[in-house]
Amino acid sequence: MVQFNYIRSMINVVILGGGNVAHHLTTQLLKNDTINLVQVYNRSIEKIQHLKNSTSITNKLSELKDADIYIISVSDNAISSLSSKINFKEKLVVHTSGGVAMKDLLTISNKGVFYLLQSFSKEREVNFSTIPICLEAENEKDLKLLSQLASKISNTVHIINSEQREKLHLAAVFVNNFVNVMYKIGHDICNTANVPFEILKPLILETASKIDEITPYEAQTGPARRNDTKTTEKHETMLLINQREIYTLLTKSINNTYGEKL
Amino acid sequence: MVQFNYIRSMINVVILGGGNVAHHLTTQLLKNDTINLVQVYNRSIEKIQHLKNSTSITNKLSELKDADIYIISVSDNAISSLSSKINFKEKLVVHTSGGVAMKDLLTISNKGVFYLLQSFSKEREVNFSTIPICLEAENEKDLKLLSQLASKISNTVHIINSEQREKLHLAAVFVNNFVNVMYKIGHDICNTANVPFEILKPLILETASKIDEITPYEAQTGPARRNDTKTTEKHETMLLINQREIYTLLTKSINNTYGEKL
Repeated sequence: MVQFNYIRSMINVVILGGGNVAHHLTTQLLKNDTINLVQVYNRSIEKIQHLKNSTSITNKLSELKDADIYIISVSDNAISSLSSKINFKEKLVVHTSGGVAMKDLLTISNKGVFYLLQSFSKEREVNFSTIPICLEAENEKDLKLLSQLASKISNTVHIINSEQREKLHLAAVFVNNFVNVMYKIGHDICNTANVPFEILKPLILETASKIDEITPYEAQTGPARRNDTKTTEKHETMLLINQREIYTLLTKSINNTYGEKL
Repeated sequence: MVQFNYIRSMINVVILGGGNVAHHLTTQLLKNDTINLVQVYNRSIEKIQHLKNSTSITNKLSELKDADIYIISVSDNAISSLSSKINFKEKLVVHTSGGVAMKDLLTISNKGVFYLLQSFSKEREVNFSTIPICLEAENEKDLKLLSQLASKISNTVHIINSEQREKLHLAAVFVNNFVNVMYKIGHDICNTANVPFEILKPLILETASKIDEITPYEAQTGPARRNDTKTTEKHETMLLINQREIYTLLTKSINNTYGEKL
C-alpha cells in the first residue's frame, strides 16, 4: 500500500458564518485550487448572496452538503448551539475562536479548532500567508487533515491545546485591543494640540518592530522607566480624568517592573 | 544680490551628548557630505572615544569650536544647566527633547528645538529618512537654518511650538511606552502558557499598520468593544493582580467610549 504517506490532494470544506473571519476565510479558500469550498451557510442569506456565483450558498442547515471539514465561524456565544445541529459521523467540525474550548462543540462529529490569530476588518485585505493558524483536534488523523488545510493558506501553523489557546487569546487582547486604546488616547491628545496623528506613525511602527529583536522587557523606555517623576507628574496634570487614571496605573506598573533595578 | 534665496551648502554642527539620540544623530550627520560635524562634546570622554578618527572630540566646554548650530542632546534635567554654559552670540543652540520647552535653554545664543520623534536604542539601526523632526526657533532665519539641516536627514519636517511638542511627547508616551507595557504583559502571559511570543507578532504588526487606513476609534475590536462580559469576566480570573487592574481599567475605558452606541 502506498497510502501511508498519502497527502489528500483536494480537501472539501463547508464554511458556516458570514462575519469578518468567515468572509476572509471564504475568499482565501476560493482562491486555492487544492481546496474545494463546497458550500457557505449563513443564517441570513443576504450576507452571503455575493458568493452565489463562486460556490453553493444556503441558510438551511438541512441542506448542508457533504464535506471533510465544517468550519463554524460565528460569534463565540453562538458556537455551541450551531454545532449541536451539525452531526455527521466521521466528519470533522471545527470552530475558529480563540476564546472557546474545543469541548464546547456539542456535536457527535469529530471536533477540532482552526483559530486564525489575526484581527480582521471587512474592508482591509490581509496577507494570509503570515497569519499564525492554531490547530487542535481530538485525534492524530484529524490534526493531520487540519494541518494540511492550514498549510495550504499559511506558512505558520501551530498545534495549541484549548488552555493554551485561551491564554493566547487573552494575550492578544493586550497586544491588540488594549494597544489600540493607547493609539486612541494618543490620537485624542494630538487632536487637542492641533497636531496631526500621522506624525506618530513612524514611532508606532518602530515600537511594534523593535520587539522582533529585543524582548518587551528590554525595549521599555520613557519617563516612567527612568523614574523621571518631574515629567510624569507634569503629564498627569495635562490629562483628562480617565486618561490620567490609565497613565497613573501604567506608570506604576513600569515602576514596579523596573523599580528595584534603578 | 543673489543671496536672497541662497541655500547654505554646508552646515557646521557641534553635538553635545553621548546618549542614544546623540549617538544616532552623530552617526547620521557624519554620513552626510553637506553637513560638517565639527565636534562632539561629552562630559565623559570615554563614551565618545570611538569618534576620534571621524571628528574632533572633547570633554571641555572651554574647547568648543565655532559652528552654526550647537545641538544639546542630553537628559532632560541636564539641558538647562548645560545650555547656560554655551553662550555664543549670533549662534544657534538647540535641544532634542520632546518634554522640555525652548525657553528652558538658558543661553544668550539664539534658541531652538530639534526634536526627533522616534524611540532610539543604541543597538538598533533606524531609518532616519522616515523620522519626523519637529522644529522650533525664535526667528524665521533660525527656523530656516534648522529646516535645512532637518531636511538633509529626514523627509518629514514639522514646525511645532513648545506647547504642541509637550502634548506630542505625552501622546508618544501612550503609543510607545505604554504600548510596550501591553507587549510585556502579552509576553508574560505567553510564558505562563508555554506558547512562543513570536506567534503574536503578525497581530502586533497588523494592529500598528491598520491605523494607517482607519482611525483608532474605528479600529477597536475585542470582547470589551462587543460588551462580551462573559469573556471579560473569565479573563479577569486568569490574570495576576496587577495585570487584572490594567485589564479592568482598559475594559472600562473601551466600554465608556463605545457603551452608548451598543
